[in-house]
Amino acid sequence: MLCEAIYHRPKNNFAYAYDKKRLHIRLKTKKNDVDEVMLVHGDPYNWDENGWQFNRKDMLLQASDALFDYWFAEITPPFRRLRYGFELKSGNEKLVYTEKGFYNVAPTDDTAYYFCFPFLNAADIFTAPEWVKDTVWYQIFPERFANGDPSLNPAGTLPWGSSKPTSTNFFGGDFQGVIDHLDYLVDLGINGIYFTPIFKAHSNHKYDTINYMEVDPQFGDKETFRRLINECHNRGIRVMLDAVFNHSGYYFAPFQDVLINQEKSNYKDWFHIWDFPIVEKPKPNYDTFAYVGAMPKLNTENPEVKKYLLDVARYWIEEFDIDGWRLDVANEVDHAFWREFRNIVKQTKPDAYILGEIWHDSMPWLQGDQFDAVMNYPFTNGAIDFFAKDMINASSFANVISKVLTMYPANVNAVSFNLLDSHDTPRILTLAEENIDRVKLLYLFQLSFIGTPCIYYGDEIGMAGGQDPGCRACMEWEKKNQNQDLFHYVKLLIELRKSDSLFGNHGSFRFLHTDNKQNSILYEKFDGDRRLIFVVNNSKATSEISISNFLNAEPSNIEEWIMKDHLTLQKRPIKLNPTSAINIQPLNFRIFEIK
Amino acid sequence: MLCEAIYHRPKNNFAYAYDKKRLHIRLKTKKNDVDEVMLVHGDPYNWDENGWQFNRKDMLLQASDALFDYWFAEITPPFRRLRYGFELKSGNEKLVYTEKGFYNVAPTDDTAYYFCFPFLNAADIFTAPEWVKDTVWYQIFPERFANGDPSLNPAGTLPWGSSKPTSTNFFGGDFQGVIDHLDYLVDLGINGIYFTPIFKAHSNHKYDTINYMEVDPQFGDKETFRRLINECHNRGIRVMLDAVFNHSGYYFAPFQDVLINQEKSNYKDWFHIWDFPIVEKPKPNYDTFAYVGAMPKLNTENPEVKKYLLDVARYWIEEFDIDGWRLDVANEVDHAFWREFRNIVKQTKPDAYILGEIWHDSMPWLQGDQFDAVMNYPFTNGAIDFFAKDMINASSFANVISKVLTMYPANVNAVSFNLLDSHDTPRILTLAEENIDRVKLLYLFQLSFIGTPCIYYGDEIGMAGGQDPGCRACMEWEKKNQNQDLFHYVKLLIELRKSDSLFGNHGSFRFLHTDNKQNSILYEKFDGDRRLIFVVNNSKATSEISISNFLNAEPSNIEEWIMKDHLTLQKRPIKLNPTSAINIQPLNFRIFEIK
Repeated sequence: MLCEAIYHRPKNNFAYAYDKKRLHIRLKTKKNDVDEVMLVHGDPYNWDENGWQFNRKDMLLQASDALFDYWFAEITPPFRRLRYGFELKSGNEKLVYTEKGFYNVAPTDDTAYYFCFPFLNAADIFTAPEWVKDTVWYQIFPERFANGDPSLNPAGTLPWGSSKPTSTNFFGGDFQGVIDHLDYLVDLGINGIYFTPIFKAHSNHKYDTINYMEVDPQFGDKETFRRLINECHNRGIRVMLDAVFNHSGYYFAPFQDVLINQEKSNYKDWFHIWDFPIVEKPKPNYDTFAYVGAMPKLNTENPEVKKYLLDVARYWIEEFDIDGWRLDVANEVDHAFWREFRNIVKQTKPDAYILGEIWHDSMPWLQGDQFDAVMNYPFTNGAIDFFAKDMINASSFANVISKVLTMYPANVNAVSFNLLDSHDTPRILTLAEENIDRVKLLYLFQLSFIGTPCIYYGDEIGMAGGQDPGCRACMEWEKKNQNQDLFHYVKLLIELRKSDSLFGNHGSFRFLHTDNKQNSILYEKFDGDRRLIFVVNNSKATSEISISNFLNAEPSNIEEWIMKDHLTLQKRPIKLNPTSAINIQPLNFRIFEIK
Repeated sequence: MLCEAIYHRPKNNFAYAYDKKRLHIRLKTKKNDVDEVMLVHGDPYNWDENGWQFNRKDMLLQASDALFDYWFAEITPPFRRLRYGFELKSGNEKLVYTEKGFYNVAPTDDTAYYFCFPFLNAADIFTAPEWVKDTVWYQIFPERFANGDPSLNPAGTLPWGSSKPTSTNFFGGDFQGVIDHLDYLVDLGINGIYFTPIFKAHSNHKYDTINYMEVDPQFGDKETFRRLINECHNRGIRVMLDAVFNHSGYYFAPFQDVLINQEKSNYKDWFHIWDFPIVEKPKPNYDTFAYVGAMPKLNTENPEVKKYLLDVARYWIEEFDIDGWRLDVANEVDHAFWREFRNIVKQTKPDAYILGEIWHDSMPWLQGDQFDAVMNYPFTNGAIDFFAKDMINASSFANVISKVLTMYPANVNAVSFNLLDSHDTPRILTLAEENIDRVKLLYLFQLSFIGTPCIYYGDEIGMAGGQDPGCRACMEWEKKNQNQDLFHYVKLLIELRKSDSLFGNHGSFRFLHTDNKQNSILYEKFDGDRRLIFVVNNSKATSEISISNFLNAEPSNIEEWIMKDHLTLQKRPIKLNPTSAINIQPLNFRIFEIK
């Protein structure tokens, strides 16, 4: 066995509390190198005259990526304490892997050899709101969703959809526009809205906050906002706002005060100013978001700033009953701030959702003390590269997705914010070079996967758009310009997700097979009772796969799901011939259910 | 190159903020597999028309263990933000390792490939008190150090040292006894005392607290304790107390209240009680330390318990000016509690030291938000196995110590609590089968190593003792029974540690060579100016090593350190012949200085 490839370290995705009783333990080994892994485990204090007493439990080969196999075991230690190691077999070779290294036989003279999960304390368990698991999000960029109250239009507002979005133009989207179209969203089936910023700001994207305690007047007043929230809640739709706490806008009063009063400003420690006088050019002499002088980084270590921002966090929950905060550039703010933020938010509304914008490996923010989830860009990139761009093959895609699933704990994955695109990326239709079939495969995968999916406004009716500002066009409300077929397809998938917990977020996921020649994948969602098998052909040719080989199921127990005209699901028995292949149309899929 | 062996993950010992400006980055590769590693790094927002702009920096091969090489680079990102990867070379082979995997060439079309240290926020930097780095601790078990006030003797107290320590007998050690012998400790040179518990308790070890707000009457009253602290402080000695917050004693009033009032007790949620009536036998029906019914686990998630224990933490600092808390069974208490504990302690006394008792890998507690250090048992075990027990060979020892140094950040290692034994283990003389020369090598290594060393009372004068209670004998105060030679040796080493920052805690450490045949090691402490070379022969035969090969130094710049009669250090020039070996006596050492 390749010892150098074997890896485990407790208290992250490799060993974590799944709930108040159960621990999850994972081990990484070289791909195809190890035949069998047993978890060697026991209570740290369980001694008798023969030494430390332990048990063994089979570990399951749960996933593989390009280089590694990932093994998994769930365990309920009776006293919530665990010492453990791993007994690995490969052919005739046997090895025991512990915190101290490798041994031929599991030692019993001391528990100090072993890995330790010292105590499963409830306070430390990663716990996200239950409702998130069953939420399908819809992301709205308020300036571009609908103009419901032209009286609020900022000067120079252009007629709706009359021209291309630029980084500076305005079309007058507002709260009333959203209210007017809530029934459209109910019809689509989504039950959560994520609004990009709504607070008073200068730009059309509103990421340059002027006042965190006010809504932007172009969107409406607080009463209209309250009505929007209530109308959402009445329809079973949760609302998440965007908190831009890493930096303020240029016109944020404290920053303006510093610009005017310089070193004498009471707000000089609200930012990270290198020296005075403060200048913006040729380069800002203060910390900023990226190199943008108009977005000065907030000093979230300053108690006054902390109090201000935490008051903001509480205010919009307490006063308007919002259901979650999405945190912009969350990775550049200190962990200490986010811990206090979580305490305040959860004290105010215990089931509020906290979502961080982080594009890279986010384990340090997902330990239970900071965020409930991050925007799952590793998922996004894998899905786009395979389904939209056809840039990676089937097995590479499976490797990426397996890495996504093994890089975090299972309870983290269950509430991961799975987006396909956003206001920060090109739209999926554009990424897929306008190929609707590819977009459909993207939605199939996103909406049948683990986590909480998000649809970017307009994607569901086939809107196209390149990198920002291209992706921020006005929502298309002319029915004749909407892709109704796509809309009904997405609507049906959402319905399936909500009506069938196995299709939705309550089954486990695994790949059964990948076929690089035919560019096809077989994956399954499963629980103790049923299995759903997805066969997806990501190639432009018909693919033929003898799926029976991978199912390990009685043919008589199999039904096929037919999504009739994208309107209703019909199930019909199907006899899968063990020796012959099934056909899947180009850029299409079939779903089978096994009871 | 063996890709499966290559490992990095940010925000722990592999990537951390060393101070407000510098990041440390480490990489693990298969031992002897990679010739050269360059850190590929740049600001995440540093783009031009050619894509992402990055720099390269050589990484240093810092340490090796049995399977891996560890590479290191220190970097000062101008905007405190970093995206980075690793360019590895082995012969003609070249690979780039990133968060997303391996590439032939460092990609420039997207930073999302790369690892990310998003922002170096001061609030998140691991910061321990400065004074700890220069502290030599002395551990006192109060019942057994000195009986200074016989009027306080508990009933049945035995004459000092008249019999073997048992788990139940008493010898009357007290605060006055410690005060009486402070000048002895000053003479030895220590400047920190760690007291095992002093609070009112039932047993002789006092780990079964009855009242956390009272000192145990057998040790004296609060005024005497205050005098003890003041006398210590007057002598430049810091004082650390032992906090047993995982569990209380059986006679802790709230637990007694539960025993009496059962389900009606106001304190029933202070513990983890499974059902009522509460019973201790045959097995406790409540959570305990190990399986000890008399040590019920405290519910540190209960706000009342939290408040009580945090008040305790503050009280002894505020009222008695103690300098640190050692936390018993720290790993079984929830992280959330320790975060609040740290806030309270550091608010009350910013330079108080927080030391957790954790015997295993402690990275999750050493991220800057919980402890300053843990009891470094991995160091202990390595040192004991090699020097005391002769159980592992020279290269195994170097592997263990290298693992100790690479498993945590450098700023964590600098304040690590390096003990050789304690009230929980046999004494070093006993572990070394009474061989004083082995004990001397242990002290040499401990006192010249990185971290903050601790001497267990009486070890320095050659006391022996097996596993608890054997290791808890009365301190030997009869000079004729003390090993004066050992005392002077330890005293001289402490003096060197304090007078020469390179010998002490301010140089870097690395192994230069290990010789398994002769069971000898060569290690060095170094900074920009000077180098100290330690050649240690851990065998019973004279060893002969051509050390010049490993020094890479001009012979004319070398002096030897002679510890004359263990009383003073003399330095004398020495010509090391490049072609011939130097002799080191059995179980002895030589020290060379290179300027």
